[in-house]
Amino acid sequence: MIIVMKTGAHESQIQDVIRRIEALGYQAHIIQGTQRTVVGAVGDERGKDRLQSLEVMPGVETVVPILHPFKLASREVKGGKSIVKVGDLEIGGPAVVVMAGPCSVESEAQILQTAQAVKAAGAKVLRGGAFKPRTSPYAFQGLAEEGLKYLDIARAATGLKIVTEVVNPMDVELVATYADILQVGARNVQNFALLKRVGEVGKPVLLKRGMATTIKEFLMAAEYILSEGNYDVILCERGIRTFETSTRFTLDLSAIPVLGKLTHLPLFVDPSHGTGQWDYVAPMAKAAIACGADGLIIEVHPNPAEAQSDGLQSLKPQKFQQLMDELRPLALAVGRRL
Amino acid sequence: MIIVMKTGAHESQIQDVIRRIEALGYQAHIIQGTQRTVVGAVGDERGKDRLQSLEVMPGVETVVPILHPFKLASREVKGGKSIVKVGDLEIGGPAVVVMAGPCSVESEAQILQTAQAVKAAGAKVLRGGAFKPRTSPYAFQGLAEEGLKYLDIARAATGLKIVTEVVNPMDVELVATYADILQVGARNVQNFALLKRVGEVGKPVLLKRGMATTIKEFLMAAEYILSEGNYDVILCERGIRTFETSTRFTLDLSAIPVLGKLTHLPLFVDPSHGTGQWDYVAPMAKAAIACGADGLIIEVHPNPAEAQSDGLQSLKPQKFQQLMDELRPLALAVGRRL
Amino acid sequence: MIIVMKTGAHESQIQDVIRRIEALGYQAHIIQGTQRTVVGAVGDERGKDRLQSLEVMPGVETVVPILHPFKLASREVKGGKSIVKVGDLEIGGPAVVVMAGPCSVESEAQILQTAQAVKAAGAKVLRGGAFKPRTSPYAFQGLAEEGLKYLDIARAATGLKIVTEVVNPMDVELVATYADILQVGARNVQNFALLKRVGEVGKPVLLKRGMATTIKEFLMAAEYILSEGNYDVILCERGIRTFETSTRFTLDLSAIPVLGKLTHLPLFVDPSHGTGQWDYVAPMAKAAIACGADGLIIEVHPNPAEAQSDGLQSLKPQKFQQLMDELRPLALAVGRRL
Amino acid sequence: MIIVMKTGAHESQIQDVIRRIEALGYQAHIIQGTQRTVVGAVGDERGKDRLQSLEVMPGVETVVPILHPFKLASREVKGGKSIVKVGDLEIGGPAVVVMAGPCSVESEAQILQTAQAVKAAGAKVLRGGAFKPRTSPYAFQGLAEEGLKYLDIARAATGLKIVTEVVNPMDVELVATYADILQVGARNVQNFALLKRVGEVGKPVLLKRGMATTIKEFLMAAEYILSEGNYDVILCERGIRTFETSTRFTLDLSAIPVLGKLTHLPLFVDPSHGTGQWDYVAPMAKAAIACGADGLIIEVHPNPAEAQSDGLQSLKPQKFQQLMDELRPLALAVGRRL
Repeated sequence: MIIVMKTGAHESQIQDVIRRIEALGYQAHIIQGTQRTVVGAVGDERGKDRLQSLEVMPGVETVVPILHPFKLASREVKGGKSIVKVGDLEIGGPAVVVMAGPCSVESEAQILQTAQAVKAAGAKVLRGGAFKPRTSPYAFQGLAEEGLKYLDIARAATGLKIVTEVVNPMDVELVATYADILQVGARNVQNFALLKRVGEVGKPVLLKRGMATTIKEFLMAAEYILSEGNYDVILCERGIRTFETSTRFTLDLSAIPVLGKLTHLPLFVDPSHGTGQWDYVAPMAKAAIACGADGLIIEVHPNPAEAQSDGLQSLKPQKFQQLMDELRPLALAVGRRL
Repeated sequence: MIIVMKTGAHESQIQDVIRRIEALGYQAHIIQGTQRTVVGAVGDERGKDRLQSLEVMPGVETVVPILHPFKLASREVKGGKSIVKVGDLEIGGPAVVVMAGPCSVESEAQILQTAQAVKAAGAKVLRGGAFKPRTSPYAFQGLAEEGLKYLDIARAATGLKIVTEVVNPMDVELVATYADILQVGARNVQNFALLKRVGEVGKPVLLKRGMATTIKEFLMAAEYILSEGNYDVILCERGIRTFETSTRFTLDLSAIPVLGKLTHLPLFVDPSHGTGQWDYVAPMAKAAIACGADGLIIEVHPNPAEAQSDGLQSLKPQKFQQLMDELRPLALAVGRRL
Repeated sequence: MIIVMKTGAHESQIQDVIRRIEALGYQAHIIQGTQRTVVGAVGDERGKDRLQSLEVMPGVETVVPILHPFKLASREVKGGKSIVKVGDLEIGGPAVVVMAGPCSVESEAQILQTAQAVKAAGAKVLRGGAFKPRTSPYAFQGLAEEGLKYLDIARAATGLKIVTEVVNPMDVELVATYADILQVGARNVQNFALLKRVGEVGKPVLLKRGMATTIKEFLMAAEYILSEGNYDVILCERGIRTFETSTRFTLDLSAIPVLGKLTHLPLFVDPSHGTGQWDYVAPMAKAAIACGADGLIIEVHPNPAEAQSDGLQSLKPQKFQQLMDELRPLALAVGRRL
Repeated sequence: MIIVMKTGAHESQIQDVIRRIEALGYQAHIIQGTQRTVVGAVGDERGKDRLQSLEVMPGVETVVPILHPFKLASREVKGGKSIVKVGDLEIGGPAVVVMAGPCSVESEAQILQTAQAVKAAGAKVLRGGAFKPRTSPYAFQGLAEEGLKYLDIARAATGLKIVTEVVNPMDVELVATYADILQVGARNVQNFALLKRVGEVGKPVLLKRGMATTIKEFLMAAEYILSEGNYDVILCERGIRTFETSTRFTLDLSAIPVLGKLTHLPLFVDPSHGTGQWDYVAPMAKAAIACGADGLIIEVHPNPAEAQSDGLQSLKPQKFQQLMDELRPLALAVGRRL
């Protein structure tokens, strides 16, 4: 950490800061500027959080951290990229992986029909929510365990892997019984109780970025899961909240190269939630692959106008098929394959 | 709902929309504009969520909702302002109520000392976290039940009411045993599993706005609690995330008059988290009272430089005393009292 | 426009609204809802701005516009896509056009060297600022007319077209003498005096989106230029301001498909300013092409560490060459060419 | 500046950085951390802009500035608060100053009637736009010089000072002939050509913060005016753009204490534009005074429903009178007077 003193800080204040740095187990190095004194705190990074509190001391202007606060998620620490294995499926490898399916599991017929369609188009993982985090208490809340059972049937019928959301720490074990990949949704990215539980249960996790989560906070959320010993975490950009209202969220695709520099974890993009409108899904899916995403998660519904949730952002199976066909040459053009 | 058709929508598309509106149990009213046709859907508001899906139909440009999606939280529905009673303490009445205390409960001595200081200054409720939602898994996570016991001791010693945060649906019952008011933090404002549980348990709830929660979503989050039959909800503005970095968050004080028009629930402001820096707490606390807040929640720590969390935004007891003294004439100037 | 009355609005208030609508030259159509009355104002859209003022009338809850406020920029009105011709160069056609060059023109040697390099790599237009809008009055402000002359020399030497920024209405004529395309920068997107002048002077304009400009405001800014009779406007997304600080701005690539639906004007992306960091330029340039951009504007500097401005986001010529080579197959994969 | 090297940066890269620091005229001080090396650049701050470019050098992770980039606007440099004198009126002193009037000057009768009303209520300055920066080219653009003449008549009739906006560098001299205070609007806060001209002309300036302007950029915009030798600058917070849409902008009142710490310039708040709705103006005006604003600028129109612009956010004279009456005791409660 770098502690910047105020202009005109007293020598005694500087000495107090040095004493406090040393009391916390660091070495203090002083740089005497022409206008300000700067003190560097050198040492093991544990307890850095406490160093931040030096900002309260008299004469201190600001405290600037030097190291990133995440460790297990760090690419620098690991030294390369990770592949998350879900059975025989590799996520984060040379092949781009597409997950697809409806927002909510609504019936056995609906999920089976969708599963067959997305499988035929080339998806490897079936998505579908059984526990739905809905903004309104009056909206459809999902079929719960019944929905999980329909997903199980669809898996048996198609061989697709299953990704489905869990919203309550109490349900993690139940959902893990059915799912191949547990999804933690955007609204729960800082639900630390949930993060710890999905860390403990040991299944691969698709962690979505929250609508106001910085890149650093996102990696710290992943760190919660990793620090429980679960290294199979996939990060998913799904749009952030900005002033722009012509899309439901603003898909922050630059998060892909930024995260790619900082972390070894595989990186996904959700162009359905990220835009909120089906006719923007294809262009943004292409853009995601072009800038280096390891995969996509896309909403597909056989009859969007009748969907219980998020119909507006769902592709019909035929449009999804067309998108997959268009993604293939694009993936090749950036050295990947679908 | 108002369904706006595209310029040049076919008559058959308009007829399809009308049929669908009627199938969902509404009456359709058509306005033939010079450039576009607009269809109004009139009827009972249940199922409005489904109407939104008309946006997917061919020829439809957009669907505009007319009614607010919240009901129990609505001022229009209730017809006045609510008072939340916590024992003999009235929140939302003519008196401005101040809650104060440390970010985290750290020890019996720390919480007792703070409780006595904030009581002496005029606070009515003691705040202090036993379960801490921390961005980093390596940061202090709170004393858990031990912390709740210290709060209990402080209550016995001072007569202050206790507000403390709950972060896991599994802990709601435990925390409710000790707390007078359950706090749901900003990161959990859309943790619907938690909202339902605090709704069921029937204790007053202080619900903080999330950092990217719109006013409408905030009221829908309250609606989750209210719809479980718990009407004792206090809303708390605590800063939203914007591009500005000179404060930790941007305290959105206009939320107070905006919410005051929309809801009957009491409205609080947290100037400590809202600014992230102790020397901005006093001016923003004053501003909050001036624009109509029913109360404040303020971080006070006997030794901020040693605090386990959020020391930078904590007032020392003496500064808190001074603030309370300055708030009294201000409250009178806006027709309230402290 | 749709005028939504408050619940319980008096009949006389509804009649007042109707009278006012008719006085402004519209027809009023009433929809009697179960809870609210809604009044549609039907008629010629001129003066819609005045209709918004109905929101002030007693009993009115809100006024919802139905039509987009832009006309000349509207794709719906024009019925297709426009091509902007700059001599023999077509912008907005099947070929993706790349503009490249330094942030600032610094010397004849620097601009000549860069021009030759970007020409060799396949760029068609040379960028370079002679008048620089700098955040600090103490920073390099550009070479002014001297810089324009160096651009002229570079054009003569390479045959590249020239795009350069104008920041003052008083300089428009001067800059137009040298430039093939006038650039209006992000900070001037609502500098209406400047927009009118570049509209009058009749040269093609590259209009950058402001950092807090909504899509609709962006199109209204273009409308200022178009309404002066200058139809050769190219829109350029260059990043918006959000809470995320790991990039200088957040490049809003979804603006490309959104704008593509709303307007006929060619659409560019500036991945250099949009990210602020050279190593994010290539992935975001690819993403831009993948989602449908008609072109790119990229900063290239022979020696970024010595650049007078924006060195951090500038590519070296060799990196730019490599990017262009990678863009070619990508453009083909989305049915374009470079 | 602090230059943070990457983990594992080569010794030769560190030496290159040191050489470059010294070549730019600074001294280099090295702190050898456990994981990274940090290099401090000590010396005169001129050219700091160039130091930022070290971020491009191999082995460099990031460059952290230590000093604020503004000087003339800095409170630290000046050592106290400034008072801007407009004739006999003191802005920034113990008395809170209120500016009021219509968004646009529409007619002689309208401006005279408003001037008399706001004068009677206690305003000291009359606002009114003759040159209007309107989002739409089809909206009312102001009466131009005719409007200035009406303001002159209103000044003669009431003795109020006049504040009016200038949007084009070419008009600065003309507007300065009529105005006591030149207003630079939010959309022009980084129109550097305009800032320089109003700096040269030497009249007091009311500079509004842009909707996406950080506190530091705002002070740098002021610095443009100050660096031309014009020290009479009043800063005005008027709302920033955020995700929240229930108000037109989000009034960032914490900007008042933040700016109060950083600069000596007087600080105003515009609750009319900051909220966009007349019934939020009074509470936010009170909040502004409570948190330390030196004054307010408020829109008042005799007949908001007929206003050419911004009727929705305008107070009627009677409401303005009532607000002024309510502000008086509030100002006293925070040690000011109206």
